[in-house]
Amino acid sequence: MARYRVLIDANDEKGLVYKVSKLFYESNFNILTNNEFVDKVNNKFFMRSVVDGDMEKEKLYDELVAVLPKDSRIKVIEPKKKNIVIMATKEMHALGDILLRHQEGELEANILGVISNYDTLEPLVSKFGIPYVCVSHEGLDRAEHEEKILAELAKFENIDYIVLAKYMRILTPRFVENFENKIINIHHSFLPAFIGANPYKQAYDRGVKIIGATAHFVNNNLDEGPIIAQDVTEVNHAYSWKDMQRLGRDVEKVVLSRALKLALEDRIFVYANKTVIF
Amino acid sequence: MARYRVLIDANDEKGLVYKVSKLFYESNFNILTNNEFVDKVNNKFFMRSVVDGDMEKEKLYDELVAVLPKDSRIKVIEPKKKNIVIMATKEMHALGDILLRHQEGELEANILGVISNYDTLEPLVSKFGIPYVCVSHEGLDRAEHEEKILAELAKFENIDYIVLAKYMRILTPRFVENFENKIINIHHSFLPAFIGANPYKQAYDRGVKIIGATAHFVNNNLDEGPIIAQDVTEVNHAYSWKDMQRLGRDVEKVVLSRALKLALEDRIFVYANKTVIF
Amino acid sequence: MARYRVLIDANDEKGLVYKVSKLFYESNFNILTNNEFVDKVNNKFFMRSVVDGDMEKEKLYDELVAVLPKDSRIKVIEPKKKNIVIMATKEMHALGDILLRHQEGELEANILGVISNYDTLEPLVSKFGIPYVCVSHEGLDRAEHEEKILAELAKFENIDYIVLAKYMRILTPRFVENFENKIINIHHSFLPAFIGANPYKQAYDRGVKIIGATAHFVNNNLDEGPIIAQDVTEVNHAYSWKDMQRLGRDVEKVVLSRALKLALEDRIFVYANKTVIF
Amino acid sequence: MARYRVLIDANDEKGLVYKVSKLFYESNFNILTNNEFVDKVNNKFFMRSVVDGDMEKEKLYDELVAVLPKDSRIKVIEPKKKNIVIMATKEMHALGDILLRHQEGELEANILGVISNYDTLEPLVSKFGIPYVCVSHEGLDRAEHEEKILAELAKFENIDYIVLAKYMRILTPRFVENFENKIINIHHSFLPAFIGANPYKQAYDRGVKIIGATAHFVNNNLDEGPIIAQDVTEVNHAYSWKDMQRLGRDVEKVVLSRALKLALEDRIFVYANKTVIF
Repeated sequence: MARYRVLIDANDEKGLVYKVSKLFYESNFNILTNNEFVDKVNNKFFMRSVVDGDMEKEKLYDELVAVLPKDSRIKVIEPKKKNIVIMATKEMHALGDILLRHQEGELEANILGVISNYDTLEPLVSKFGIPYVCVSHEGLDRAEHEEKILAELAKFENIDYIVLAKYMRILTPRFVENFENKIINIHHSFLPAFIGANPYKQAYDRGVKIIGATAHFVNNNLDEGPIIAQDVTEVNHAYSWKDMQRLGRDVEKVVLSRALKLALEDRIFVYANKTVIF
Repeated sequence: MARYRVLIDANDEKGLVYKVSKLFYESNFNILTNNEFVDKVNNKFFMRSVVDGDMEKEKLYDELVAVLPKDSRIKVIEPKKKNIVIMATKEMHALGDILLRHQEGELEANILGVISNYDTLEPLVSKFGIPYVCVSHEGLDRAEHEEKILAELAKFENIDYIVLAKYMRILTPRFVENFENKIINIHHSFLPAFIGANPYKQAYDRGVKIIGATAHFVNNNLDEGPIIAQDVTEVNHAYSWKDMQRLGRDVEKVVLSRALKLALEDRIFVYANKTVIF
Repeated sequence: MARYRVLIDANDEKGLVYKVSKLFYESNFNILTNNEFVDKVNNKFFMRSVVDGDMEKEKLYDELVAVLPKDSRIKVIEPKKKNIVIMATKEMHALGDILLRHQEGELEANILGVISNYDTLEPLVSKFGIPYVCVSHEGLDRAEHEEKILAELAKFENIDYIVLAKYMRILTPRFVENFENKIINIHHSFLPAFIGANPYKQAYDRGVKIIGATAHFVNNNLDEGPIIAQDVTEVNHAYSWKDMQRLGRDVEKVVLSRALKLALEDRIFVYANKTVIF
Repeated sequence: MARYRVLIDANDEKGLVYKVSKLFYESNFNILTNNEFVDKVNNKFFMRSVVDGDMEKEKLYDELVAVLPKDSRIKVIEPKKKNIVIMATKEMHALGDILLRHQEGELEANILGVISNYDTLEPLVSKFGIPYVCVSHEGLDRAEHEEKILAELAKFENIDYIVLAKYMRILTPRFVENFENKIINIHHSFLPAFIGANPYKQAYDRGVKIIGATAHFVNNNLDEGPIIAQDVTEVNHAYSWKDMQRLGRDVEKVVLSRALKLALEDRIFVYANKTVIF
């Protein structure tokens, strides 16, 4: 008996649920959970099923291809730990939160390593027995620095996701296109408010009464990728921007870990620069 | 072309989604939205579909009966305004919020009338051209009073839901059993905290930092019926219990209206003293 | 015995609390509540005290002037109903919420009238016995239309606040400068996200997971005035922008009423395009 | 120049703010922040000031005693790291969150050690170079076990706070009375809902739509001590109680750390089984 996560992203047409559930039924699959969503505006159909059955993975995939519209994007995934690499700069909270959850067994992930442009976080990471690679950006232009990081990433095999746990440097389109919808970033504001540098300072200057954080996939336009998760917390006039930053960290780490968990459990579809999350 | 909301509450077994989606497909229904949930603990299957098609309502019902397990509870509902009666005492906010939403056309409901044990709210209700019935409890014991209310309710035809919009008297089991899962109450606390009288006073005395409100169906045990919706808001030491009450009203009215909307749109299943909400 | 709200906005220097509390003490005032805040960045001191005592208002003011730094802004206010005019367009929820609260006696306000560029809301407003003035913008340019509204406003005496309860037209600087920090607007987004037209559509297109509303004073730059109150609510991929709009209304009306209440109770200081709220 | 946190808990009477601010002013103190609260119901006055000045701590204390009512509780505290001991059982998230914050320098605390009735958490704690004491309860009755824990606690000097980071055993009144308002516990429910064992199971069975966590001081009655901080998060019918537990952990750890931070910064007053928090 095997368990599969079946993900279908198709153009909508009549009978899709019928065809897939027929296949599951006749092949004697047991459906554990089933979620569907139809976007009427874009005529898109999304389905995620978790099923138990005896069919081989490749065969299930082929049968799904046979019944679904051409150009459907179909995934049949065996739940297992995904490989992630974390990139960080100097702040500890978001990275540390992931390390702790990993240690507690909460994440379906192997952490292959942590890459940083400083050595600040090395003591923390090494406590957890995880490889730490410092790739300083000093004396390098952006392209050179990214080249070195890409070289380090190439040493890891089969990276499923790169997690930017407060990695404070901008990634170029060239870097990003290597990892489409595979880079998860935490931005320390309630996007699209306060794009760019020092969002807590911006929030303080604007006098907002609520601050937030946003986890999103990274695409070519800074801070404009598909949003995965957001959360907020209240502030008032008595908060300096440093206070906001301190308070905001609690939101950042929880939102990033929540987004990472959704990704590891194959719950996210991306389209039209948005996410469908089951 | 007709639109139906199809609600299925069945014991779970393999193939339920298949059988229903087959029926929809072969009868040429178009599925607008589809939600399923399987409660593995209780082996229960719940499904709500909104479909467009040409089949008659009775025929669709019969066909569903034919393919689903015996003892399944099946509803085929044509979306139309439901009939509601509101019961209130003296407070205006929850009742007024429903009247306003009704006036704005936000609710799929006809308000048949408002029943109160005081005449306080008559001026408000009559502004909206809705019948107001005052059934004073003075000089009556609980049974006598309820008898008179039941008599008034009997004058309205086809009541779908009774909404207790801060009706501050306890209903007896005898009353309640006439309207199983048809009475929606707003309790002014985050249940099950602060069951019973004056929950804001209780909350103040306990020194909580968050207060809330709970909309639930009414059953025989006071404040213990299936919960439909809850929400909360923050307080602090500077709030008197009157302040909490004032602030809490905003939560009460929003939560009650939200629960009412879910009921009017046939989105609620009740079982095991809980709700499944799609 | 009189009650006063004393509001002090001064440049910070040593001894301000001492000097004010000395005055209260020696003049035999009883302090009911007292709030202070010092903004170290801008060297500003804010204080709001509610006091009971026998001194006349003008004398208290003069004594405060005598002990406080020059250029301090001092207000001694007797709590009483303030005069407000509401401006709206076609939507009912925010306006209706204020009318209900007013009827329930929750607001320290006289509603002098409602001005709209349509007659849509006249039936609702007249239910509550409040004057309704329709000033259509049809066939008028912006300046002409505003001129007519200003003429209507001039007929009301002593307006304390103008409340824009989903008034969907932009006000010019010329209009606004007549009512500095006296116009309270509700913007249907979590500002500064989604400035401008149709923020729910913008939010939908961006794929956010949380939507919000912002009450703020109106200044010359659209949607950029000092923020008074904000709140948010969660959405997901299944929400159309119309769904977001419907859900957002509940946030809008609560946030606007909360901001109005803060203003009516003299709890808001404005400076540096921000608010201090006690 | 020294900095002090001055905490005053007194019976209310006219002139308290005046007398304290006079003292600060005449002794040439600079007030950084100042908060007051008067509980009219209990006629209690609370004040917390952070001041900079040249007076010695003992002298400032004596001067305050001289001007304030007898029976006032006065504290003059120099901000410095407080000594804490953490007690835990097997769960890692709440303990780990404190260890990380400590490492990041966010907490004004020395962690003297961690005491657990299991050795499960030893590997985690030792990573951070903090003493770990395992006091197994096996074969011991409650009194004997506590005796051994008290003996271990006695080895640490000057404990300011004991933090129960998911310590899953009940403490007896005898234990608790040694540390009045010094033991901070995290309860995994929105108290007073779901007192006692397995609150997530209770919440699941009740069918709530929101779950929460509560940090409180421990007194003789289990889960009934003064509440310091609470927070909540939304759930729905699809959550098993294990899912609620997993989600709830994020709330637990943030709420406990927030409460701990308030305690370390001397922001909490306790009276009437409640807290005043500045």
